[in-house]
Amino acid sequence: MKSFIEYSVDTDFPIQNNEKHIGVAIGEWILDLNVISHLFNGPLLKDKQNVFKEEKLNSFMGLTKPHWIEARNTLQSLLDVSNTTLHNDNELRQKAFVKQIDAKMHVPADIGDYTDFYSSIHHATNVGIMFRSKENALMPNWKYLPVGYHGRSSSIVISGTPIRRPYGQTLPVEGADPFFGPCRLMDFELEMGCFVGGPPTELGERVTAQQATDRIFGFVLMNDWSARDIQKWEYVPLGPFTAKNLGTSISPWIVTVEALRPAIVDNYPQDPPPFSYLKHDDKFNFNIKLEVDLKSGKSPAVTTICRSNYRFLYWTVKQQLAQQTITGCNIRPGDLLGSGTISGDTPDSYGSMLELAWRGTKPIRLVDGEERKFIQDGDTITLRGYAAGLDGVRIGFGKCEGTLLPATPFE
Amino acid sequence: MKSFIEYSVDTDFPIQNNEKHIGVAIGEWILDLNVISHLFNGPLLKDKQNVFKEEKLNSFMGLTKPHWIEARNTLQSLLDVSNTTLHNDNELRQKAFVKQIDAKMHVPADIGDYTDFYSSIHHATNVGIMFRSKENALMPNWKYLPVGYHGRSSSIVISGTPIRRPYGQTLPVEGADPFFGPCRLMDFELEMGCFVGGPPTELGERVTAQQATDRIFGFVLMNDWSARDIQKWEYVPLGPFTAKNLGTSISPWIVTVEALRPAIVDNYPQDPPPFSYLKHDDKFNFNIKLEVDLKSGKSPAVTTICRSNYRFLYWTVKQQLAQQTITGCNIRPGDLLGSGTISGDTPDSYGSMLELAWRGTKPIRLVDGEERKFIQDGDTITLRGYAAGLDGVRIGFGKCEGTLLPATPFE
Repeated sequence: MKSFIEYSVDTDFPIQNNEKHIGVAIGEWILDLNVISHLFNGPLLKDKQNVFKEEKLNSFMGLTKPHWIEARNTLQSLLDVSNTTLHNDNELRQKAFVKQIDAKMHVPADIGDYTDFYSSIHHATNVGIMFRSKENALMPNWKYLPVGYHGRSSSIVISGTPIRRPYGQTLPVEGADPFFGPCRLMDFELEMGCFVGGPPTELGERVTAQQATDRIFGFVLMNDWSARDIQKWEYVPLGPFTAKNLGTSISPWIVTVEALRPAIVDNYPQDPPPFSYLKHDDKFNFNIKLEVDLKSGKSPAVTTICRSNYRFLYWTVKQQLAQQTITGCNIRPGDLLGSGTISGDTPDSYGSMLELAWRGTKPIRLVDGEERKFIQDGDTITLRGYAAGLDGVRIGFGKCEGTLLPATPFE
Repeated sequence: MKSFIEYSVDTDFPIQNNEKHIGVAIGEWILDLNVISHLFNGPLLKDKQNVFKEEKLNSFMGLTKPHWIEARNTLQSLLDVSNTTLHNDNELRQKAFVKQIDAKMHVPADIGDYTDFYSSIHHATNVGIMFRSKENALMPNWKYLPVGYHGRSSSIVISGTPIRRPYGQTLPVEGADPFFGPCRLMDFELEMGCFVGGPPTELGERVTAQQATDRIFGFVLMNDWSARDIQKWEYVPLGPFTAKNLGTSISPWIVTVEALRPAIVDNYPQDPPPFSYLKHDDKFNFNIKLEVDLKSGKSPAVTTICRSNYRFLYWTVKQQLAQQTITGCNIRPGDLLGSGTISGDTPDSYGSMLELAWRGTKPIRLVDGEERKFIQDGDTITLRGYAAGLDGVRIGFGKCEGTLLPATPFE
């Protein structure tokens, strides 16, 4: 295989006519699947070519794993140097390939429901130590089920979208009255998002971790922007709410599970053993190297402030989906599951400013000499990631970027 | 006005052809707005008649309050006995009116995001007393902001849809290992849902309580089914999750704010006074009488187990929307805001079994002699409500009903 580099599916780049199309990234290029939908002639897809004509990936996601694999095989074949279909048809090639730089990216699916988990044991432990104690760092339920909560779908935005520092209520002095004003502790969270695929399930239907294999479509990078001071005041007893719904950024290219196969690694050891509905036999953990860059608005220097890895997660995404559905909650293709902040066990692998600067007690020094406890106005946060296979294969996720804008004064 | 009884908007009753149409309830009948869309000839709607041709109400909701009022005026005029347009056109009348009994009801909008609040001071106090103490019943934040959390959109179902008792993890013995099995403490929650209208807002935009007037489309009855034992084990620290996503029932007819005007009453007194973004000058509380019936699967007898009122809510829905958006979260027409369990200050007005039977310590006696601490398999829960105006006007919400099915055994 020479020309096909990675199988990343995306959508929504308006070319000449501001149309949104589904596409696949090939190096600097995007292959426009709308233009070549007629070439998906395999037994499963030949009657389903319309899914590539849509603006979003939901219909394609709503097919089955064998459909996704056939699409991947067709693409690999079309892009092979020995295949003449695209190669020798100049007119089609002209229409089918778009430079990435000329395309505007969009959120690749209608996200019916977004759920965010809390699946890094290092992150949960760090936060527990900070806000409770080392002895009671993990809540009693944490090792029995993937703790999660429902998030806000409307405010999931594509990489590049600026995020505005919010106003909200905080409690600067314990026991005193709360304060209303701009957030003072803005943070990022290094996460990965997973898109759910397969036909919708019915209310009352469960998807066990074992059954979830056919339901995991692919992954993106995700920044779960968090207003820490607002979160702390509002979150009892019903969980984070407005501290998180101000914006969640995702990278535009979905890397499918098939593409990630070379990067599969052992699952994180789990003790106690999980209940049967959370058990699965296969490895479903991935060696995805993740980095976070911070660029101050005041200088061009970029500091890599975090080096983490998806493999540090305690719970797999199949277990997350099993938890999501155990009470019979129905799922739809295009649902998004967030991993939770992905922290490793070393201080440079912590996936949030809260942990990196340890609640403001250990400020981070940037390469230009500035210091950070939390994110400042004008800072750009960039998540980057690539899956690394044993055989040297490197499957890139691109980046998930956002700049923090100053708060809009309250009238 | 003789023939027009209430202005309830709904959608989605497949008539002959299983098509989903938007309609308005008139006594035993439904007026099919798809069929009479050409009659909306007012200055605002004459170019927007297509919104009545859609399957869901989102596009109509996405217009503005003046559009909604014009639609209401047009309907009132068309239904007035002195108006001949519909009255004298037999063919159109035949097509335009469908018997409610012949229609299948559906969820009236695509609910992009669903948020559930916790706005009854009596409910929050009751739960606080049960799980903490009388002295610390209300959390410190409760009187400063309408506490809420993001819920699950996919599992919102229309009245009549059965709900299945879920499996899940619980902690029967404090400090011991958790247990996996069927929920043993199934509950209902008497709530009202509010559909958000108006054009979508941008990320970063705030809607203050004062501005929210133009954003409140209308109300439905809502049963937020809750698995109490599952909730108790899972909810720290990120809030309720699978204990609530097993199903949320709503009544099909949306009663608009305009229709509720005669039932407006004083807002609940708030002390301390709310922050500016939560303040609004006008009355936006409603005298909506609410009742909950329980019918055992073993007998035909129906027991009214709760008599409550929407007016008992401490926070208004305008304040809820202001809180939802204070950090810049964008909203979309069709978003649903749940009130939280609506309990009054007397034991017969408590809006959940948890409170009515006081955590199982005071079982409820049904008219057929049975007792209940929580809901049993086969029980049918029916919420009913009507707004009562000072002038004797009575605006019905119909009912929100669901039967609890036994859990599906786990294989």
